[in-house]
Formats: sequence, C-alpha cells, structure tokens
Amino acid sequence: MDWQKVLAERNTRMKASEIRELLKLLDQPEIISFAGGIPDPALFPTQAFADAMHATLTGPASGAALQYSVSEGYRPLRDWIAGQMAAIGVPCDADNILITSGSQQALDYLGKLFLDPDDTALVTWPTYMGALGAFNAYQPRYERLDPHSNRPVEALAEAASEAGGRVKFAYLSADFANPTGETLDRAGREALLDMAESLDIAVIEDAAYQVLRYDGAPVAPILALELARKGDLEACRTIYCGSFSKVLSPGLRVGWVVAAKPVIARLVLMKQAADLHSPTLNQIATDHVARAIFPEHVARLRSVYAARRDAMLAALAQHMPEGVRWTRPEGGMFVWLTLPEGMDGAALLAQSLKTEKVAFVPGRAFFADGSNGNTLRLAFSVADEAMIAEGIRRLGRLIGGA
Amino acid sequence: MDWQKVLAERNTRMKASEIRELLKLLDQPEIISFAGGIPDPALFPTQAFADAMHATLTGPASGAALQYSVSEGYRPLRDWIAGQMAAIGVPCDADNILITSGSQQALDYLGKLFLDPDDTALVTWPTYMGALGAFNAYQPRYERLDPHSNRPVEALAEAASEAGGRVKFAYLSADFANPTGETLDRAGREALLDMAESLDIAVIEDAAYQVLRYDGAPVAPILALELARKGDLEACRTIYCGSFSKVLSPGLRVGWVVAAKPVIARLVLMKQAADLHSPTLNQIATDHVARAIFPEHVARLRSVYAARRDAMLAALAQHMPEGVRWTRPEGGMFVWLTLPEGMDGAALLAQSLKTEKVAFVPGRAFFADGSNGNTLRLAFSVADEAMIAEGIRRLGRLIGGA
Repeated sequence: MDWQKVLAERNTRMKASEIRELLKLLDQPEIISFAGGIPDPALFPTQAFADAMHATLTGPASGAALQYSVSEGYRPLRDWIAGQMAAIGVPCDADNILITSGSQQALDYLGKLFLDPDDTALVTWPTYMGALGAFNAYQPRYERLDPHSNRPVEALAEAASEAGGRVKFAYLSADFANPTGETLDRAGREALLDMAESLDIAVIEDAAYQVLRYDGAPVAPILALELARKGDLEACRTIYCGSFSKVLSPGLRVGWVVAAKPVIARLVLMKQAADLHSPTLNQIATDHVARAIFPEHVARLRSVYAARRDAMLAALAQHMPEGVRWTRPEGGMFVWLTLPEGMDGAALLAQSLKTEKVAFVPGRAFFADGSNGNTLRLAFSVADEAMIAEGIRRLGRLIGGA
Repeated sequence: MDWQKVLAERNTRMKASEIRELLKLLDQPEIISFAGGIPDPALFPTQAFADAMHATLTGPASGAALQYSVSEGYRPLRDWIAGQMAAIGVPCDADNILITSGSQQALDYLGKLFLDPDDTALVTWPTYMGALGAFNAYQPRYERLDPHSNRPVEALAEAASEAGGRVKFAYLSADFANPTGETLDRAGREALLDMAESLDIAVIEDAAYQVLRYDGAPVAPILALELARKGDLEACRTIYCGSFSKVLSPGLRVGWVVAAKPVIARLVLMKQAADLHSPTLNQIATDHVARAIFPEHVARLRSVYAARRDAMLAALAQHMPEGVRWTRPEGGMFVWLTLPEGMDGAALLAQSLKTEKVAFVPGRAFFADGSNGNTLRLAFSVADEAMIAEGIRRLGRLIGGA
C-alpha cells in the first residue's frame, strides 16, 4: 500500500522530537545527562502515590476510579486547582478548568482549537520545542514574539493576512522558560497583554515550571495581570496551562487549563471527541497526593533543584572558556548556553557523546526558523551536584578545545 | 474577547456527544439505564489493579513508573499484546503496536493521520458515534459503507473527487458493533478488503468488543484475513484498534493500534507531539493485570454479560409490541431496536425518562446523515437481569401506548 496517497497534508509537518529521541540515551549509565527536561525520579512522592492508589482501589469508590468519567475532569481535583489559582491571583471556579493529559495535550488542543492552515502563531525565539511540535500538526506559520520590542503590531497582522490567515495567539512560557530558564518581567507581561489586545488574539501562558522558583520575587501570572485589568475572568483572553509533571509526576500525565468558560466548554467537547477523558484513577490519586503533601513537597524540590542550579552556575563560571554566555535562572530546570558564533550545538553534541559522555539538547530545534545553531540547553534537574560539576568540566574542556 | 474571530474552522463540526451527556443521568439511582455502553464496575478486577499498582509503586521501578516514558508505549505490554494478536491470526512484533489512551484516541489520531478537509470517510449506517466525533474534527464527508452491497466502488471514488478530496479509509466495528451488536460475516469482510484494494484506501477495524463473544463461531479479524491473503503485515492496509476498556478498565485509558510499521511510526510522531505518551503507570499495571488474570477474567465477563443479553432478548420478545424489531447479538453490549416508522427515539427517551425512568440512546446520532430517527440503542452491560426485565417491560409499555 502506498500510504502517501492517503496521508493528510498536515503530516508533512510532523517530525521526531530531538528531545524524545535523546531520552533514549538516558538509559546509558555512563552518560552524564543534561538533556531531558525531566524531574529527578528520586524526588517523586512514590509512597504518597502508592498510598493514594491503594486507598482508592480498596475503598468504596474503587469501581468509579476504574470507570469512564466526565471529560471536564475529576471535580475535587478541579476544586483543589481552583484554590491554587486563587492563591496566585486567579480566583476561578471548576467550570474554568479542564483536566488534560499533561500540559502537552493542552498545547495540542489549543492548536486544534485556534489554528487553520496558514494562520500565524507568535512564539518566542527560542520557544518550547514541544509547543512547535503540537502546533505544527495544524499547519501554522510562526512569527517572533518579543514583548519588549517596539515593532508595531500592525506589521504582524498584515504579514499574517498576506500569508492567507490571521494571527491567532501568542504562546510563551513566562516563568523559567523552557529552554532559556528566563522569566518575563512584569513590564513585559503588561506589554504582551497590550499587544494581544491590539491584535485581538489569545495568549497561551505555559506555566509548567511556575511553582519551581528558587529565589527572586515572584512575578504575577499573565492571566492574573489581565484579570486585574478586567475584573472578570470571562473577559480574559489569556489561557493558562498548568501541570503536575514537574512537581508530582510526569508519568501520570495530569495537567490543566484555566480560561474563560466558553474556551473551556469548547476544549471539553474536543477532549470528549479525542480521548473521552484523562484517566480517572490518575486524577483521583493526584488529588489525594496534592492535598496531602503539595506545599512540603514543593519546598523539598526547591531546595534540591536550587542547589543543583547553583552547582551548574558555579561550574559554568569555573570551566567555560571566553566567549560562552549563559542565563542565570531564578527557577525551573534549565540554563541556556550561547556558544561563540560559528560553533554548532548539534556537532558539539555528537562530539560530546563520543569523547566526554555528556548529553544536552542542541538549541536549533527550539527556534521556529531553525536558526541560532550556536546554542544549547542544559538541564540541571537530574544530575546531582558532583555529576554537574564533572559534566560541566568536561563540556568546558570540549568547547575550549573545539 | 470575541472568540469566534480566532477559532479554527474545524470547531464548527464539534458538538456534544449525546452519550456523554447521558452518562450524567446514570448518577440518578431511580433510572434503569440501558444508555451508556460501559462495563459494569462491579466486574472490574479492582483487587488485581490494587495489587499491581502497589507492587509497582513500592518496588524498584517505582521511579520509572511515575516518570516520562516512550511515546510507543511500555514494551512488555506491547509484547503481551503481540502474543494476543498472534492468537487471533495476526502475528506481529512490538514495532507494529502503539499504545494509545483508549481506542478513542486511536480514532482521533487516525482521523488526524488521514483526513484533509473534504476527504471522504466510509462508515457504516449506523456507526459508533464517537468515531464520527473524532473524525469530524478533521472535516471529512461521509459515505455509506456496506460491504454486502453491489454498489460499484467507482461511484464512491468519483463522488469523493467531486467533493474536493479522496476516499481515505473505511471505518467499522466488525464484531458486536456499537451500536447494532451485529457482526460482519467472513464474506462481508472479504468483500470489504476487495473494495479497499480497488479504492486503494486504509481499513480501520475497531475491535473494542472483539473478545466479548458469548456464542456462535468467531470470525477472523479483518486484519487476519488480509494478512492471510498477503503473507506480510507490512503489505496490509488494515489498521486494527484494540482496547482494554471493555474488559479490564475504561478509566485507565489503555488501548492499542496494530498496523504496518510505517503507519505506527507516523502515529508515534503524532502521539509525541500530542500528549508525549500514555500514562506510564497505567500501562505497567495493565500489563501486570493482563498477564495475571486475562483469560479467567474474560471468561467471567462472558458468563455475566451473556446472561444479561439473554435476559434482554427474552424481555424484548415478551414485552415489545408488534412492529418493533431488534438485533440478536452474539457478543458485546448492545441490542439495536427499530421502532415502527414515524416513531422517534429522541422523543421516546424524553417521555421514558419522565414516566418510565428508563434510559437508552436514541439512534439518530449514530447515523452520519442524522437519518433513522426511529431507532435506539439498548446496552445490557450494566443492569442486572431483574432490572433488565423490568426496564424492558416499562419500555414495551411505553412504546405500545405511544
């Protein structure tokens, strides 16, 4: 059978994620990995999940936990999330919340909700490569999102229209962004909201790392700033995507979306048609574990990851040669490295895996236009301080000798 | 914000599923429900799942169970499925298998893989309404699939081309179909394969109910028949969608797709972009439970559901007035009822909920063209024999008096 004859055109845009392919390398114990943006499994609250699963599956609601459930998501979990959102400036109720299978699914659904072929999505340069992967299926074009630039928005609208579509949304990771580790400041967030108003587009705020702040003052979520302007969540254009993946467990695939009710209602229909609902038991167990240990567990993660970030920044200062620059994140899991002009992150990775046994993600895949090959992403979330020091030492040696 | 301005066109095709809305009625204890096509939660192997979850989360692989994992799915589970497939005439290996979040997700992904707007999908009249829901997001048109008809396929190809697309696939539930309970015989399956060859299209075989056969001789899966013709799975155009939802647990959302490797490879990329992977722990637990109890558990389900089917068929024979027809399924969960011409299933449901407290699904939503309003689907999977007898008695009274 010649499958090309029956494939939809959108498939031409789908290709393997470098990150996912790289994850396969993590099984090799001799590699020091700064590659996957994954939490340290040694920090998972496994006992709390074991207890929650056991209580649920041996209790009176065991049948319900294994049964079909509503597409919106488990109501007690949505209520708990509503409480968390209120604490960061976004009071809302359960009808403003959809449970998704990780925030990756939220990005897929939002692409599906908004993007017709040749529409324009605004993304930062660089941006989360998984967002590009999710959106690509809906065949958009991309324009660079830079809230601090003075570029007039009319030019963006015009270019989008000439390309046969419309600007539909701006997507960004505002806190400790994947891949740069950088946080958009309040002025940038306000400028972004002004820009979204002018263009009359949605804002997708990816908050996957938001609670993982190690120092510095928190910046209000974009959705909180918009709500403060408008006084009513139903009038807001910002769509907030949260996740338990970086804090409790990525393997259970539980994330959420907070938005105005008409958006949630459409996403619920979409989810109904696409996978009915996220797994019932996973939502119940996440609810139990979140209620039991969330603040203490987050405090523990902050302390461990902050020490690893410090170890990485110290090692970079000690071992990187002249001409290499990097970010100094206040949270999250990533440091973003810029190599001297002309060096290539992908070539460096190939060499590094061979001679230094150090893994990272070359930066090119995070740029919608595949530019900036002289960058790379270092995750400090999995290796301990000693391994970080050793890995950065080797990497500095390699870059210095290259 | 005026959301209409930024919504993608595909959203115009998405609407609430009558089944999912009806599920909300099941909470009312005074209703006898023949509505949801859901397994009886009293039959879930909850202890086996509790044991599997406990063993996994307190064992040496607890970290891996809560961590990100590969998009293809958990290898031991894919190996177990490969063994099951071999037993029904489809020897294959793990690379022919993708784990999905229920077979609903497989339908969504296959629609995404194949359908450009205005392409044609062939579906039975009636068909699983969730398949229409999943495919609708990709804006196809539908033509009636009838393997036993003598309609020349050239007409289908021509109509598809005139509509601005191409016939991409035929979708059907071959065994104890949702909603009719009917099984396509071997001659029909062979005719379908001939037709697919002529049109050069894919065949999507939805096997969600396949193991739930209560009597009669098994018919080989369409994929097994095609494999017997061609001798090589890589040459086959049939894509088989399986599910643990009807047998072990729907709430854990674990299903699978079996197909030629190029199809699986594309679906893996799609899943990577859409939700990274199905929950790791759910796949591990399903693997444990399937290996521990699958054959005995299926035997138990067959015995309980067969008795309920028998009770429903006996009650229908006793209580339905002249002019009402129904199917006699050899398995699955459904009997399909055809009311006298001019009666309307939806109006009957409204009346039934009010005066008889009996729920079912009106048939119209299962037809791509919304025709055949004088039909309805009765599920015998949840109510026990006494409730089935009473519910059908009330329904017969209502139809007879209407």
